Amino acid sequence: MSDFHMTECIRKTKAHLPLSPAEIKALVQGVTDESVPDYQTAAWLMAVCFNGLTDEETAQLTMSMRDSGQVMHWDMLPGPVADKHSTGGVGDKTTLILAPIAAACGIFMPKMSGRGLGHTGGTIDKLESIPGLTTALDPAEFLALVQRVGCAVSMQTGNLAPADKKLYALRDVTETVNSIPLICASIMSKKLATGADHILLDVKVGSGAFMKNDADAAELARLMRAAAKADGRQCTAILTDMDRPLGRCIGNALEVQEAIRVLRGETDNALGQLCIALAAELLRMSGKGDADTCRKLAKQAVSSGSALQKLAQMIEGQHGDPRVTDDLSLLPQAKCSRVLRAERAGCIASMHSEEIGRASVLLGAGRMTKADSIDPAAGIVLAAELGDAVSTGDPLLTMYAATEQQLDEAEQKLRAAVVITDEQPEKSPLIHKIFSDRT
Amino acid sequence: MSDFHMTECIRKTKAHLPLSPAEIKALVQGVTDESVPDYQTAAWLMAVCFNGLTDEETAQLTMSMRDSGQVMHWDMLPGPVADKHSTGGVGDKTTLILAPIAAACGIFMPKMSGRGLGHTGGTIDKLESIPGLTTALDPAEFLALVQRVGCAVSMQTGNLAPADKKLYALRDVTETVNSIPLICASIMSKKLATGADHILLDVKVGSGAFMKNDADAAELARLMRAAAKADGRQCTAILTDMDRPLGRCIGNALEVQEAIRVLRGETDNALGQLCIALAAELLRMSGKGDADTCRKLAKQAVSSGSALQKLAQMIEGQHGDPRVTDDLSLLPQAKCSRVLRAERAGCIASMHSEEIGRASVLLGAGRMTKADSIDPAAGIVLAAELGDAVSTGDPLLTMYAATEQQLDEAEQKLRAAVVITDEQPEKSPLIHKIFSDRT
Repeated sequence: MSDFHMTECIRKTKAHLPLSPAEIKALVQGVTDESVPDYQTAAWLMAVCFNGLTDEETAQLTMSMRDSGQVMHWDMLPGPVADKHSTGGVGDKTTLILAPIAAACGIFMPKMSGRGLGHTGGTIDKLESIPGLTTALDPAEFLALVQRVGCAVSMQTGNLAPADKKLYALRDVTETVNSIPLICASIMSKKLATGADHILLDVKVGSGAFMKNDADAAELARLMRAAAKADGRQCTAILTDMDRPLGRCIGNALEVQEAIRVLRGETDNALGQLCIALAAELLRMSGKGDADTCRKLAKQAVSSGSALQKLAQMIEGQHGDPRVTDDLSLLPQAKCSRVLRAERAGCIASMHSEEIGRASVLLGAGRMTKADSIDPAAGIVLAAELGDAVSTGDPLLTMYAATEQQLDEAEQKLRAAVVITDEQPEKSPLIHKIFSDRT
Repeated sequence: MSDFHMTECIRKTKAHLPLSPAEIKALVQGVTDESVPDYQTAAWLMAVCFNGLTDEETAQLTMSMRDSGQVMHWDMLPGPVADKHSTGGVGDKTTLILAPIAAACGIFMPKMSGRGLGHTGGTIDKLESIPGLTTALDPAEFLALVQRVGCAVSMQTGNLAPADKKLYALRDVTETVNSIPLICASIMSKKLATGADHILLDVKVGSGAFMKNDADAAELARLMRAAAKADGRQCTAILTDMDRPLGRCIGNALEVQEAIRVLRGETDNALGQLCIALAAELLRMSGKGDADTCRKLAKQAVSSGSALQKLAQMIEGQHGDPRVTDDLSLLPQAKCSRVLRAERAGCIASMHSEEIGRASVLLGAGRMTKADSIDPAAGIVLAAELGDAVSTGDPLLTMYAATEQQLDEAEQKLRAAVVITDEQPEKSPLIHKIFSDRT
């Protein structure tokens, strides 16, 4: 593209004029091969933050970013291939529950995942809290495991959508992260590159999520589905609540524990219900029957123990100790713990999930920069949920960490994050809305 | 400033929140010492293009950019020190006329100037068309000449407002030039650094200018005057018409010729009238009397020949041949010329000055990139003015160049730039508006 001029792209986006598919391809190519200087890309990204992109531009950007690296194919798998993506939340361990349920029902889930950063956790960190487990699988081993068990979780390789890596690194330091078309292209370029036919998007909305309100979350869901459709994939987006943490455990080994409990059928809380709903939608998309049938299939996978068995097989296949599914005490245990109790009677009016996520970082469960190491045993277990009535002295939560000092630091943040008032709060449903081809 | 975060500046400007004076100082410092990466500066510049800056931010940015390099002082000069700046036009040779008039009236004008780029010319290029003349004067020689004659024109040194050089280079390649607060800071940081007490701004407005309409030009004038006032300087801004070239000559030696003719009192056209108005305002600002008195003083400087004498002295002081003021044939002469004639009868309805400027570049009188060399003799002499009635075959203009091929190329452009219709066009006055402390 010798006639490509990045200044022309900046000028057009700044003037609210659409870029041609050829211009977007050349722009992404230039970002990938570094022939376009960062300062021009940064100026363009800021113009996108102000003026947005059309749906066509967003879909083209997504596909050009997908094509900047390796695009995976799963033709060798003898069944439907599905993927799930969550936009990031606090206490979100759905992948650990959903993937085994789907695998137990005959769906293949070759899952690429990432580490946690800031107040949100990452599936890779959670799984790696299991003794011995590795997510650095070579492609052949990963494929063999998916073929044999139906699911596996691998660290994202360096070659998937490299344009996204470069763009994200630049957005991160130029205050250009919060643009819905750019978020769509970032997420979907990687999802489309991983090659699943059926994509389930869990779009978190609320105080602990990147999307703070339903309107933004719905717009992101719409754009992501349009990009998937433009690439011939089936895609459902579910808007779920992140005004409170998902489930009762926050922290890596603690979340693995909770996931195992759900798969054992020991808890039937909102987390378990969400996972059944997500699994049912994945099954429906993959042609396993109508909504009711799929719901029953998902529930049976749990009640029969076949999903838990899939998790144990996956852990074993990834060199972890599968006995953790029987004996939770084999997971890392924290040295120090402290119970936080209600200082007054009333109702739990707010559980600010972003602040709870930040407190879990202070406890050692997360990292503020990519270079930080994490403590797999650290975290928080909630004893009460949003809307619960409590008396003075009732336990609200337990903190786990390596040192008393970490407990002190986190306690301050958690006192502010959990608010008790006289009134019963309005509690939004866990699932706000579903955007699927059914509707 | 260890607590300075450029991302915080980008975030604030993007969110329409004002930056503190300390933040702006640190930002300019970071641009100057290159501790702030270009991609962050580019993102911030684009946010400024969308959201603007407050008057206070603009004044602070201007002064921080001024302080990024050398700030000149003229306390050693025994009289008022004045400066004039034009925002750039086609055929604008006012400095060559104004500076000698001002010097003849006892005002000191130590003028820093630049080269031309694109369709607009530069005073340095014009002066250097005089045989032998140099604008690369060392500071002591420059000062001595100003002390002796009252005026001198020097190439801008590398050390004046280096932040502006860096910011402008970045704006030029990130489509962030057209922001009025950024244009204000760019112009005024250099003007304030050159240290004059009285500043006259000639803000060009129209098709051949950066400001295409009166509203933008007035806003730029207002901001520039506010920045000057914040720095304790006196400043008048005059909005002048650039829907037509200024005067009849475009091209370096041709413009020197025209300036000499005006100072000889040989022409009394719009150019001459504008220069008298500009000079009168400079004299008024410098305390030489009321508007009427100053007008008379300026006219007398021309009619008495004292202004022309000042020009000759300045040329001699800059090692040029002062005899050009007596004998215009000593200026470089073009090898080829061609007269363009009216192809129909009617009125000259439009003389698109930007296109005429571009045609003069094709003839060799200007440069498209900084590396291009120019032909001092090349250019255009208009035979008719906007609004004039012409018959078929009447001369419209004469082109001057080194080759016939250049004449061919420019002719096409000029045919389109000069439009003849049946109706008399509306002709705006040369001076649109004056913003001064008087009004």
